[in-house]
Amino acid sequence: MSAERDLKVVGRSVTKLDALGLACGQARYTDDVVIPGLLHAKILGSPHPHARIVALDTSRAEALPGVLAVLDHRNTPRVMRTTAGQGFPEPSPYDYTTFDDKVRFVGDRVAAVAAQTEAIACEALSLIRVEYEELPAVFDPEEALGPGAPVIHDEPDARAAIPVEYEPGRNLAAHVKVEVGDVERALAAAERVFTRRFTVHMASHAMLEPPITICDFDDTGRLVVRTSTQVPFHARRIVAQALQIPVRMVRVVKPRIGGGFGGKQEVMLEPVCALLAWRTRCPVRLAMTREEVFVTARTRHAQVIDLRTAVDGGGDLTAIDLKVVMNNGGYGSHALTVACNTGSKVLPIFNRVPNQRFEATTAYTNLPVGGAYRGYGATQGYFALGVVVDEMAAALGVDVVDLWRRHHIRAGETSPIFAALGEGRAGVVMTVDSCGLPECLDRGAEAIGWAEKRGRRPRDGSRVRGVGMVCLMQGSSIPEVDMGAASIKLNDDGSFNLLVGATDLGTGSDTVLAQIAAEVLGVGVEQVLVYSSDTDLTPFDVGAYASSTTYLSGGAVQKAAADARRQILAAAAAMTGASLEELDLADGAVVGPDGRPLVTLSEVALHTLYAHNQHQVMGIASHISHRSPPPFSAHFAEVEVDEETGVVRVLDYVAAVDCGTAVNPKLAEGQTEGAVVNGIGYALTERYLFDGRGRVLNPSFGGYKIPCAADIPPVRTILVSTWEPTGPFGAKSVSEIGINGPLPAIANAIFDAVGVRLTDAPFTPERVLSALRAR
Amino acid sequence: MSAERDLKVVGRSVTKLDALGLACGQARYTDDVVIPGLLHAKILGSPHPHARIVALDTSRAEALPGVLAVLDHRNTPRVMRTTAGQGFPEPSPYDYTTFDDKVRFVGDRVAAVAAQTEAIACEALSLIRVEYEELPAVFDPEEALGPGAPVIHDEPDARAAIPVEYEPGRNLAAHVKVEVGDVERALAAAERVFTRRFTVHMASHAMLEPPITICDFDDTGRLVVRTSTQVPFHARRIVAQALQIPVRMVRVVKPRIGGGFGGKQEVMLEPVCALLAWRTRCPVRLAMTREEVFVTARTRHAQVIDLRTAVDGGGDLTAIDLKVVMNNGGYGSHALTVACNTGSKVLPIFNRVPNQRFEATTAYTNLPVGGAYRGYGATQGYFALGVVVDEMAAALGVDVVDLWRRHHIRAGETSPIFAALGEGRAGVVMTVDSCGLPECLDRGAEAIGWAEKRGRRPRDGSRVRGVGMVCLMQGSSIPEVDMGAASIKLNDDGSFNLLVGATDLGTGSDTVLAQIAAEVLGVGVEQVLVYSSDTDLTPFDVGAYASSTTYLSGGAVQKAAADARRQILAAAAAMTGASLEELDLADGAVVGPDGRPLVTLSEVALHTLYAHNQHQVMGIASHISHRSPPPFSAHFAEVEVDEETGVVRVLDYVAAVDCGTAVNPKLAEGQTEGAVVNGIGYALTERYLFDGRGRVLNPSFGGYKIPCAADIPPVRTILVSTWEPTGPFGAKSVSEIGINGPLPAIANAIFDAVGVRLTDAPFTPERVLSALRAR
Repeated sequence: MSAERDLKVVGRSVTKLDALGLACGQARYTDDVVIPGLLHAKILGSPHPHARIVALDTSRAEALPGVLAVLDHRNTPRVMRTTAGQGFPEPSPYDYTTFDDKVRFVGDRVAAVAAQTEAIACEALSLIRVEYEELPAVFDPEEALGPGAPVIHDEPDARAAIPVEYEPGRNLAAHVKVEVGDVERALAAAERVFTRRFTVHMASHAMLEPPITICDFDDTGRLVVRTSTQVPFHARRIVAQALQIPVRMVRVVKPRIGGGFGGKQEVMLEPVCALLAWRTRCPVRLAMTREEVFVTARTRHAQVIDLRTAVDGGGDLTAIDLKVVMNNGGYGSHALTVACNTGSKVLPIFNRVPNQRFEATTAYTNLPVGGAYRGYGATQGYFALGVVVDEMAAALGVDVVDLWRRHHIRAGETSPIFAALGEGRAGVVMTVDSCGLPECLDRGAEAIGWAEKRGRRPRDGSRVRGVGMVCLMQGSSIPEVDMGAASIKLNDDGSFNLLVGATDLGTGSDTVLAQIAAEVLGVGVEQVLVYSSDTDLTPFDVGAYASSTTYLSGGAVQKAAADARRQILAAAAAMTGASLEELDLADGAVVGPDGRPLVTLSEVALHTLYAHNQHQVMGIASHISHRSPPPFSAHFAEVEVDEETGVVRVLDYVAAVDCGTAVNPKLAEGQTEGAVVNGIGYALTERYLFDGRGRVLNPSFGGYKIPCAADIPPVRTILVSTWEPTGPFGAKSVSEIGINGPLPAIANAIFDAVGVRLTDAPFTPERVLSALRAR
Repeated sequence: MSAERDLKVVGRSVTKLDALGLACGQARYTDDVVIPGLLHAKILGSPHPHARIVALDTSRAEALPGVLAVLDHRNTPRVMRTTAGQGFPEPSPYDYTTFDDKVRFVGDRVAAVAAQTEAIACEALSLIRVEYEELPAVFDPEEALGPGAPVIHDEPDARAAIPVEYEPGRNLAAHVKVEVGDVERALAAAERVFTRRFTVHMASHAMLEPPITICDFDDTGRLVVRTSTQVPFHARRIVAQALQIPVRMVRVVKPRIGGGFGGKQEVMLEPVCALLAWRTRCPVRLAMTREEVFVTARTRHAQVIDLRTAVDGGGDLTAIDLKVVMNNGGYGSHALTVACNTGSKVLPIFNRVPNQRFEATTAYTNLPVGGAYRGYGATQGYFALGVVVDEMAAALGVDVVDLWRRHHIRAGETSPIFAALGEGRAGVVMTVDSCGLPECLDRGAEAIGWAEKRGRRPRDGSRVRGVGMVCLMQGSSIPEVDMGAASIKLNDDGSFNLLVGATDLGTGSDTVLAQIAAEVLGVGVEQVLVYSSDTDLTPFDVGAYASSTTYLSGGAVQKAAADARRQILAAAAAMTGASLEELDLADGAVVGPDGRPLVTLSEVALHTLYAHNQHQVMGIASHISHRSPPPFSAHFAEVEVDEETGVVRVLDYVAAVDCGTAVNPKLAEGQTEGAVVNGIGYALTERYLFDGRGRVLNPSFGGYKIPCAADIPPVRTILVSTWEPTGPFGAKSVSEIGINGPLPAIANAIFDAVGVRLTDAPFTPERVLSALRAR
């Protein structure tokens, strides 16, 4: 299983295990479960951005025929927690309870109803009378942090779950500041200093399947939570906590999922649905409408970023000073970790810059709540860095590709700022072992036609073209925090059942994990039957986030399969009299040193299950990593800017990405294309519009303007192969990195075309026109 | 975990894990699964006991609106196999295929239909035109084996799955003959020889839930077979074999089961239901009606038993000659193994008798098919032996209790006849390590009032009372054939998920297995969540038969829990700095040498899952046994015989049983009471009535006369505790042994009351009257 080994299943674009079912409409999502007597739940949201609930009358709702339960803060446990489904303790402020007597954003929960039909539930909501004491609201994070701002969190039992600067009384949800070297001295000594302020906007995950939970009971009275979640095991813990029942009373089952992108790393619906089921002892369904997804689900955190860079006389970067103010909305979900990531996933790419400072301040405001979102802070940070690097190159008169080439981190190098940013837990190593960025730059530039197109600004009437680029990195799992585990057993016919806590969100990770197991076991991928994930049946896994599944859960699968492999070889040695060391697995059989099959896996299975010294060949393993090896990427965009209308069209997009070994190249391309499309929409059209009172004005796909198929340019993915020594068969992650590119690459391409720097996202026609006018 | 250890959970009558759900009607059986679009299947049975299908016209059935598929021998694979779900190769003749062009008993399969409703399916059956060539039929096994009998199996592809004397051409389904010592010489030298012929009748399992299967597809197109089975893993193999698809395409799920008693060790419905689902690509339900259970499901094999015993001048038994002719009906399900068991579970109890001979011959006839049935041949054998021992004691003028006491096998003794009977596979040891029979005899005799009642024959008008008894043994699993496996993982709150392939049929075995795990892990039984069984998710287990679950699957659970225990202690040692050797588990915590808790299991779980060196604490183990330790039992019955009507009433029944450690005494009592009631019905009222053409005349509970609550005497169970060193916490089996007692104990009590020996079962009023008249 070395780099040298000729891979047979890993590295092949095998068809997704669930492709046929998905194509034929057979895939079973949460809402496809048929449960007789299912109740339907709805949640009443606040019409005010900030208010105290003075009086609440649910009696008319309760009296409505067909209503089985009405819950609010008066009849549910007050358990302070967070909706962020992360490690334990959850590294977000514990500032949230299922229902509170205060609302902190428009749509914040007031009450919930379970009824025989959805129509009755909706009618019941309309019968609930709430008397609010409206409070002054604040929407701007810097204003929220300033003196005299209304205090959003005044509950005495809110607290920071981990040691961090946290002062809800002055709307401070998290604060972090680190420095390596001496940034002020470097700035003072610099030949040139570049300073820019960026605003990066809120975004919706816009997953096709909105969050949905169905709670039921098993026949021993335990709660069975079927839910579209990225984090089944965290959901189990949080539901138990919210209901104040033991974890053993809760089983969380993850059906197929129609996309998550971080939005289903939040445990939002599950506790409400579970409380309603627990109260009624009936199965209950609770799903978000699309409008509710926009208004009440989590969002990408908006940030205001101040970036300063210093360059010495030789044109070398000497300092980076990155300062972030993050808007977390009404609750502090991921307040610390997303803000940290804006530094820790961005600054290490310029590891060679000796002086780095990073400060992030997360504010509460009365807007929808920020949360995990693909890119997780890095997206925001790369916008700022990518644009400033482009600006520096222009100012220094060098090719920006060369500027990146000169300064980016190399294999073998370690990142001090990463360590300083609290990711330096004992044992965590931020040494880069594999880096394909030089090849990404070469092949990406070649593919987009960089040399021919850059700076040429071809014009066609009012439309001018330009090209821009950026370099990126991300991580692969959270080192020493994330953990995956797997078990795998051998069946009669030489097939295997692989049980993993890892959670396929539609990414194809089940297929990737099956390929890893199949490679270890010398079988075709169709011989590996994957079941993921169910807290009763599959081993623990932290869940699908932080680009961890292939790298970390895949590592667990590789180990578990290796454990089964050892058992198979031992049995085969006993069966054949061959020496264990000479045996290998290939093509569904145990082979001898000459590669010829000695016994098939089915024969080994039948022997071990039925014939002699019977035992179930079954491998188990857990896996953590002390590293979070970054994938690298170079993105190149070609755009056309219409100077008359301000409309920006992306004509071509190249993403060259080093994800180590692409276990399934087609799926890696799919992840990259999806992320780039996601990023293009974010860069050009997608945005929340609010009225002056914190109400979302455009809570629909049409109003929010996610791109449709016709809006998407050709996205070309170039997989640059490296070998990550800590990853399964050399693999790193690929799922998040792609979204970090479009904002800076498109901004830089717009500059290349029309000479204006866009620093406020998204780049709407109005903003482009306004920038052109100011040119 | 020694005998000395103070047990905290094992040995306690904890409530069945599923008791509340069962009591509240929440338990989910196969038929409780809700599947939209479910088709309903019915099977057309033969009206003839023996016939060739000359022509078959299904066109009208196929044309009926709502009919989706009609299957028969012309459009289904011909795969010769057996319906017996046992080991691999299955130790029964491979004389069966899903549909054949010949029928061998009334009700034998001709065709099957899947339709939108059950009514349409029934109508479709009526539209199938079958032209039969009727063949001469034979119903008596000795006649069937004789010259000139019609040949029932003439298909060239039938074969014996294991090396055994097997000649379908002369209706010989199996034959075995073994001898230890020299029986003929002993008989010749004997002071007295006792000779009797017994007939033991066919019986229905009469499980409350008739066999039922629902086949569906998962969203990758694999077949999901939900079925009321004792043998999920064997069912998986047999379904795959019958459909000629890889095992990996089949998942078998066992919901809750409403009783099996061996009848669900047969894989009867699954292949038909699966073929219909595979053909229609729709979910299909196939269930037996009660009538179909009687006519087409398996039965207890009827036997004709010839028994001769020899006694020397000192009153010692010197020889036993046991000769069995077994009626297997139309197919050879369990033909060899049940017949063997009539010797191997019966003769070893008189291991001290030096000369033993056993011969069994299994015949095909045109009657319903024999199969596994609680007691599995031993029931028949103990009837013969128990009655003859009683007769010998009377003839010798000794107390039969003393005769048993003198001759029964002792702890430390080995059984040569057991070894000779082919159970002497390499490594199998038939040494008795624990034997509580002396105490069973003492306490049972005391409880029934043996000394006061035996031979007294108190009379009340025409009603006379008497007492009778018998000694019994059985086994605990099939040594070196059966295998169990388990996995167990630790959850956040210190609870555990236990996955076992073992199959709870309603016996409470899930609870017993949870107790074993809980004992090892120092937690309450409610902390162990059991999931059994599902071929995708649980480790392999041969299934619930041969009294194996507590002993064998329990052994696997004990080992898996011990594996988890080691991991927990290692983690706790690392957490606390304590020395590993000093640590123990108790009351949900890791305790130090002083018994004081150092860390709770929840703390260990949170530490290992989230905090440091993260891993899923998870134990796995497989278990086989080289022994099949016999439970022992002494049964005592008091009856009242009405000399006018011939009606026999059981007034009192005492079953003293040594099952080693009773893991859950209440459940062990339940097993014993159930088995005794089952046996009393079998002894007195239950029987099949046939017309002269092999048709069952009484296929209903009322006609077949299973006892109802009012018919049941007090059954008193005395658990005699021994410590079986090879069993989990000293446990042996208890599930089957109880049914072996009532036939001989009641027959002997009738003799004690009215002086007639009944040797043909059941002891109906007609037979009793007839015997009384002949007295």
